[in-house]
Amino acid sequence: MYRSHTNGALRLRDITSTVILSGWVQKTRDKGFMIWVDLRDRYGITQLIFDEERSSQEAMEQARKLTREMVITVTGEVIERESKNPQLPTGDIEVLVQKLTILNSAKTPPFTIEDETDGGEDIRMKYRYLDIRRKPVRENLIFRHKVSMEVRKYLSDQGFIDVETPYLIKSTPEGARDFVVPSRMNEGQFYALPQSPQTFKQLLMVGGMDKYFQIVKCFRDEDLRADRQPEFTQIDCEMAFVEQEDILQTFEGLTRHLLKEINGVDIQDFPRMTYADAMKAYGNDKPDIRFGMKFGELNAVAQHREFNVFNNAELVVGIAVPGAASYTRKEIDKLIEWVKRPQIGALGLVYVKCNEDGSYKSSVDKFYDQDDLEAWAKATGAQKGDLMLVLSGEAHTTRTQLSALRMEMGERLGLRKPHEFAPLWVVDFPLLEWDEETNRYHAMHHPFTAPKPEHLELLKTDPRKANANAYDLVLNGNEIGGGSIRIHDREVQSQLFDLLGFSKEEAQAQFGFLMEAFEYGAPPHGGIAFGLDRLVAILGGQETIRDFIAFPKNNAGRDVMIDAPAALDEEQLNELNIKVTL
Amino acid sequence: MYRSHTNGALRLRDITSTVILSGWVQKTRDKGFMIWVDLRDRYGITQLIFDEERSSQEAMEQARKLTREMVITVTGEVIERESKNPQLPTGDIEVLVQKLTILNSAKTPPFTIEDETDGGEDIRMKYRYLDIRRKPVRENLIFRHKVSMEVRKYLSDQGFIDVETPYLIKSTPEGARDFVVPSRMNEGQFYALPQSPQTFKQLLMVGGMDKYFQIVKCFRDEDLRADRQPEFTQIDCEMAFVEQEDILQTFEGLTRHLLKEINGVDIQDFPRMTYADAMKAYGNDKPDIRFGMKFGELNAVAQHREFNVFNNAELVVGIAVPGAASYTRKEIDKLIEWVKRPQIGALGLVYVKCNEDGSYKSSVDKFYDQDDLEAWAKATGAQKGDLMLVLSGEAHTTRTQLSALRMEMGERLGLRKPHEFAPLWVVDFPLLEWDEETNRYHAMHHPFTAPKPEHLELLKTDPRKANANAYDLVLNGNEIGGGSIRIHDREVQSQLFDLLGFSKEEAQAQFGFLMEAFEYGAPPHGGIAFGLDRLVAILGGQETIRDFIAFPKNNAGRDVMIDAPAALDEEQLNELNIKVTL
Repeated sequence: MYRSHTNGALRLRDITSTVILSGWVQKTRDKGFMIWVDLRDRYGITQLIFDEERSSQEAMEQARKLTREMVITVTGEVIERESKNPQLPTGDIEVLVQKLTILNSAKTPPFTIEDETDGGEDIRMKYRYLDIRRKPVRENLIFRHKVSMEVRKYLSDQGFIDVETPYLIKSTPEGARDFVVPSRMNEGQFYALPQSPQTFKQLLMVGGMDKYFQIVKCFRDEDLRADRQPEFTQIDCEMAFVEQEDILQTFEGLTRHLLKEINGVDIQDFPRMTYADAMKAYGNDKPDIRFGMKFGELNAVAQHREFNVFNNAELVVGIAVPGAASYTRKEIDKLIEWVKRPQIGALGLVYVKCNEDGSYKSSVDKFYDQDDLEAWAKATGAQKGDLMLVLSGEAHTTRTQLSALRMEMGERLGLRKPHEFAPLWVVDFPLLEWDEETNRYHAMHHPFTAPKPEHLELLKTDPRKANANAYDLVLNGNEIGGGSIRIHDREVQSQLFDLLGFSKEEAQAQFGFLMEAFEYGAPPHGGIAFGLDRLVAILGGQETIRDFIAFPKNNAGRDVMIDAPAALDEEQLNELNIKVTL
Repeated sequence: MYRSHTNGALRLRDITSTVILSGWVQKTRDKGFMIWVDLRDRYGITQLIFDEERSSQEAMEQARKLTREMVITVTGEVIERESKNPQLPTGDIEVLVQKLTILNSAKTPPFTIEDETDGGEDIRMKYRYLDIRRKPVRENLIFRHKVSMEVRKYLSDQGFIDVETPYLIKSTPEGARDFVVPSRMNEGQFYALPQSPQTFKQLLMVGGMDKYFQIVKCFRDEDLRADRQPEFTQIDCEMAFVEQEDILQTFEGLTRHLLKEINGVDIQDFPRMTYADAMKAYGNDKPDIRFGMKFGELNAVAQHREFNVFNNAELVVGIAVPGAASYTRKEIDKLIEWVKRPQIGALGLVYVKCNEDGSYKSSVDKFYDQDDLEAWAKATGAQKGDLMLVLSGEAHTTRTQLSALRMEMGERLGLRKPHEFAPLWVVDFPLLEWDEETNRYHAMHHPFTAPKPEHLELLKTDPRKANANAYDLVLNGNEIGGGSIRIHDREVQSQLFDLLGFSKEEAQAQFGFLMEAFEYGAPPHGGIAFGLDRLVAILGGQETIRDFIAFPKNNAGRDVMIDAPAALDEEQLNELNIKVTL
């Protein structure tokens, strides 16, 4: 037996018990006649004491050999500590060791195994198994486990059935690139890894499963941005015989349950906002509504003077930053630099200080008088003491820029509190978006999304104006889930494929099975998918998903620990009937 | 709203309520002035009634258009049935329809959507979404969900953490063939899909996660045998600071929990048997111990006469088939044919009838007298009325043949009762097996399995004799789980790789990261993996795993519903820098 207790278990009540403990040596202090060792495992730290008078000679000798991260097992007696450590749950006791066995030695780790480590990202990824020994990383993974369990429990209690869908499926040209898998048994043919189980969950609805969920890995071969992973995890859900309202209610319920069980936060209110309103008020389809600074459009009150920058702009739009009128010239210059960075790309920034005395001081005082600026303040909701920040230009670009500036100001002012939660449904997304580059429509959500029934006619006359019964669940400025009511009619699906530029043959080859399924009695259905990696990170009060993935890949899609991907040997390639063409 | 109730919900207490129901038309009966429709969903069947006097004219007209598998929604009043149907939970009531909407029409399905269908395997696979509408298939998937949920609940309650390990990993030459995934971003390199998360779960133990589990898809590119799938699901588990006994206890607990919760069966006894004993007594390392017919070795009592078939055999071995002395000559001839089939491959079969009067009648009466045969009866445990069946030849082959015969007789005699459960641990597996063909050792379990500590020295002197701390959990003659205590020492791991014929360079390239991890303080650890597909099938009283997989592949590894795998277009291949060489 390696242990009678874990290192988080012992308390004063255990005094005089003989116990067996195992774990890693966190640190040692050698006072010659006495040696203390902090013994660590997943559950905590227990202090061991070796004492010339009370421990065996042999144990003392062994203890002197101990170095950090060695794996040991000890037998000893639980005694009360003289100087207790209130920081540790086990801080009232220590274990007087009689017998010590070194189970495995350890080289000095390349970084310290402490909450705050000296190791950089790269080295920690290479030795991820050592990184996981650090409490913050370990706790993140345990936190993820708790979230997954609660998700499953809630959905299962609601009658959802966890159905495993296949990983080896078929490549489809829609959306992002697929990862593919050559088939040895079907020569010259390839499977693809799923970007999502979309068509399978729809077929489960056609099959009468009624309520489906799965926590499932999905794959996208994209050029990786920071914080994107080629494999990621979805909470994938689908329901039959539902309208949008049923789905919103159900998954509000799930999110409320998680916030309650995981974060202890009781949130009843899940406000809703249309896509159009979100874009207008926040320049963003996933606004962080934990703070205000809603956009105020200024065209009507800023295009009547000689200031051509504004006069030539499609949109003049500003926000009121609360309490920031006190910003110095230097601080404002820095903000101007910030919006001019290539990541944001604004050409300039107009500011207006709303002084406490009711007067205004702006960077465009030579064009606008106090009444003008008061009109701006009214439009942006600026109060005395606030700082108005105004951008102008092409409407969509300017909104995106101001949205970034708003988020930055929210961050700087500490308004994005990690443990405050503000969910929001964004609804009424457009069905299609026009891509100038490829000169065709793309599905805003995906090609299986149903147009709103009342917009069905628009598909023939003005598809751009058709809205979808599509919805995103936004939490603290992050999209944590998105879904839609699906098409369940062969004709409508076929019409959509037409609009998206599929030829009849392509549509048939790729999705013939789905369209055929719709002819055998498909029920109305819809669903949603949550990004588990991000959901867990946000519930954990963080935004970096990598910290919540046990073995993440780097920005080049590599696992630097196992050194994958790697070259294959010729024999393996030959068996698969493929050849590398580099 | 599509429904106020499901089709399994309504009872007498609901009479006079107005309800909305949706579902599929199971069948219709039209008596002219009255029409009955069975409406089906996942939850059950509700009878609808349309009545010229009480339903609207419009509803009657709509109802006459209904055909099988149409999707409809109705509004109506719950009324008491005149002739109740005790077979149906909703059989006391019916719904008098006021309003009927056809949500989707349906072509005639290619097979009947009934418990017993007229569709063959192939057509049901092609239209799997229709097959899933059939209650037995749907119930199997729901059953699987229940098993998964119970597994997670039990393990989580025991402190196991569900950690997701990566799917895009590195190819290793050991074991079965890997499925590989070309990397576009890392040109000319490939990921592999995991055959199991083995190395990752071991690294989690090195990382101090202590107790890990995951229900995870694994992949093997094997030539498919019946009932093998290229992707399959494992319950994968690992624990640190454990000995074999800890693991056996823990997973006995899990299995006991499942048998109790899922099957309502209380099984305390998990007997254990060594691999050597299992092979000797049952010719099989996964014996079905729901019935006896243990092997009796007859060399000592059958090789002293002039019967050269036996005299030249390495092994003469028999079983006593209870109550089968009454078999006719014809029945016995059929058995002889059966063992001679190429799948079994025996050259012949000797039989001895143990008559009720204590005498024996055998096919080798001219060589053996009654005393000889009595000695055989003693060795096989044959009683009056039993039939002894005896095979001979090379020991291993003969045991395998007799094992197959034993299972067949168990089946014929109805001793393999699907809802009777007999678990068994098989322990003390050999560490290595010698492969005559390749002239090298193979790992019996896998290359990370630890030799028994007391057999460590044998690795240098006589590796064939070394046993491992490896164990299989057998249920009703099927291996449902297997695992081992792992090596946690770099030197021993390196020694194993040597024995398995890896060069130092190969071992380093493939498993360098693991061996390096062992140098940073690896704890003793071990684990087990259950095959979920098979476990679910056996708990469900069946043996065909395909019936418990939502979208299985056929024996050629194809998904005939979506028609995968398929050819890729040139552009996609070019991006991946590969070429098909056919």
